[in-house]
Amino acid sequence: MKPTIRDVARMAEVSISTVSRVMNAPETVVPSKRNRVIEAIKELKYQPNAFARGLIYKKSNTLGLLIPDIENLYFAGVIRGMQDACIKLGYSLMICNTDRDMERTLSYIDTFHEKQVDGIVFASDMLYPEYYEKLTGFRIPFVLVSSHSDEYEVPSVEVDDELAAYDAVKFLIELGHKEIGMIGFNHDNSVSGPPRAAGFVRALTEFGLERNTGRIKYANHRFEHAYQAAHELFSEYPELSAVFCVADEFAMGTISYLKDRNILVPGQVSVIGFDNLRMSGMFIPKLTTIAQPIYQLGYRAAEKLHELLTTGNVAVMKEQMEHKLIVRESSREK
Amino acid sequence: MKPTIRDVARMAEVSISTVSRVMNAPETVVPSKRNRVIEAIKELKYQPNAFARGLIYKKSNTLGLLIPDIENLYFAGVIRGMQDACIKLGYSLMICNTDRDMERTLSYIDTFHEKQVDGIVFASDMLYPEYYEKLTGFRIPFVLVSSHSDEYEVPSVEVDDELAAYDAVKFLIELGHKEIGMIGFNHDNSVSGPPRAAGFVRALTEFGLERNTGRIKYANHRFEHAYQAAHELFSEYPELSAVFCVADEFAMGTISYLKDRNILVPGQVSVIGFDNLRMSGMFIPKLTTIAQPIYQLGYRAAEKLHELLTTGNVAVMKEQMEHKLIVRESSREK
Repeated sequence: MKPTIRDVARMAEVSISTVSRVMNAPETVVPSKRNRVIEAIKELKYQPNAFARGLIYKKSNTLGLLIPDIENLYFAGVIRGMQDACIKLGYSLMICNTDRDMERTLSYIDTFHEKQVDGIVFASDMLYPEYYEKLTGFRIPFVLVSSHSDEYEVPSVEVDDELAAYDAVKFLIELGHKEIGMIGFNHDNSVSGPPRAAGFVRALTEFGLERNTGRIKYANHRFEHAYQAAHELFSEYPELSAVFCVADEFAMGTISYLKDRNILVPGQVSVIGFDNLRMSGMFIPKLTTIAQPIYQLGYRAAEKLHELLTTGNVAVMKEQMEHKLIVRESSREK
Repeated sequence: MKPTIRDVARMAEVSISTVSRVMNAPETVVPSKRNRVIEAIKELKYQPNAFARGLIYKKSNTLGLLIPDIENLYFAGVIRGMQDACIKLGYSLMICNTDRDMERTLSYIDTFHEKQVDGIVFASDMLYPEYYEKLTGFRIPFVLVSSHSDEYEVPSVEVDDELAAYDAVKFLIELGHKEIGMIGFNHDNSVSGPPRAAGFVRALTEFGLERNTGRIKYANHRFEHAYQAAHELFSEYPELSAVFCVADEFAMGTISYLKDRNILVPGQVSVIGFDNLRMSGMFIPKLTTIAQPIYQLGYRAAEKLHELLTTGNVAVMKEQMEHKLIVRESSREK
């Protein structure tokens, strides 16, 4: 049977309201009692469900958002969607920028806890055990956006990265391209890197183009890096007639590289991006890309967190939203 | 003589520590006393200086940043600079996105006050009296970045918008252009709009090209709007051979429009931007632009706020940083 707050109080030899205070405003409880309560919570593995938590804890009507890189155009759209949902639902939204730095991320979780946010949306980064432990230790409800966790049961909302990448590469193949490369995310710090690479490989394999599967160079989230990666890719495989880029920023960096080498896009090389950033329709040439519902992902993440905060649960744990191929000017039949 | 906390306490018939508590943690003071203190503060026009304030108030080591539009590429750089300064100085940084909406801005000032930020950086938006009253009412120290106030004595850091615009237009004139237009910010909600338009007019006038001074169309901070403004500008003045855009986003929108009309940049029309966004060196063609020290503006704003918080004052009230002309590919001799 699941332990109750009563069990914790009994084991710690304190009143139920003291247990509640330890969870709600620990600084108001003398350290000796506080430590007994914390020990009892740990020993019993007591977990108030989020609903009960919502009833016990003071609501601040503030949500926190942790994003890895404020300069990445992708997040601007996520933030806009999340903010609009927050306005509708009556929350203030506070944003902190982690730079994918573990120490900073942990420190911002501390800050959000001190500021008593009701919940956190955690965007795009890996949910390392350190983060999970701290968030659950503080009992801060949270959801993941553009990310998911295989290890933990955490609500998440994202697109199907593998299928989206598959669709992008299949599109290039159906245009007649047979020499195809890819600019991908470094796998070691990327949630979507491995599935997008898997989609690339699956499409090539399905159409008998396995010889391309090794033609991948990796970049680190910025178009400057993609420019460099494109240089490496085309130096090694000058025969390529199409490139799948796992981000629109990478597609822009790749096109910029090709332009500087006087290689025409799409005349000589087709480039397809991923994201459908606000920028992608204004770039020259306008980008063919896989559209993520960026705004909706942010909006949905806030709604999901609200659902978790108000009902203690979410109807769909791992939610996937639809992607869509947008054909513009950067791709052409071979 | 300036009133002291002692005068406030005497008039409100409470202790000095009660006055301090009203300023620090008003919710801990019974309403009747609290109201007497607030009345006395108002009547005496009592203003604790920020230094005394720092000594009285609890420090939260958190700064707040209010930005008008998280999707605007300009702010990403400001945020990065500010965040790096915060890390160096030991602050957490919380960001809220106002959409230049007055109600939302006021609400976020409330939120920052509730969360007890030590100070606020207010970016790019007009400092309306409503904002000033609320911030000073809460006694939250604040500085302006990419903005300034003519009405109030508020520390600020920005570039010299008039001179920067003048330099941009002078550069076009010295390339031999005589038919020059401009895509500007709408003046009614823009701090930098009027001085940049003034710089445009001054350069034209100085070089005897007054006939161009009316060739301005306005856009609303997004390249989509600049695309439309460029359409209006070139429909009305097809003879233009150069355009000064008050933002790199506008330059991209303008170039995108010209590309869709098959007008070559820089072959037929030179375009100069303003900002030197991360993107501007990756665009096709790479943008000639007036570089703002975007990162440094954010960095300096945080330092300035820190100076205000720790010393109660700033050495330079209205600080201007240097701009710089960056010549790339979007401009050419006439």
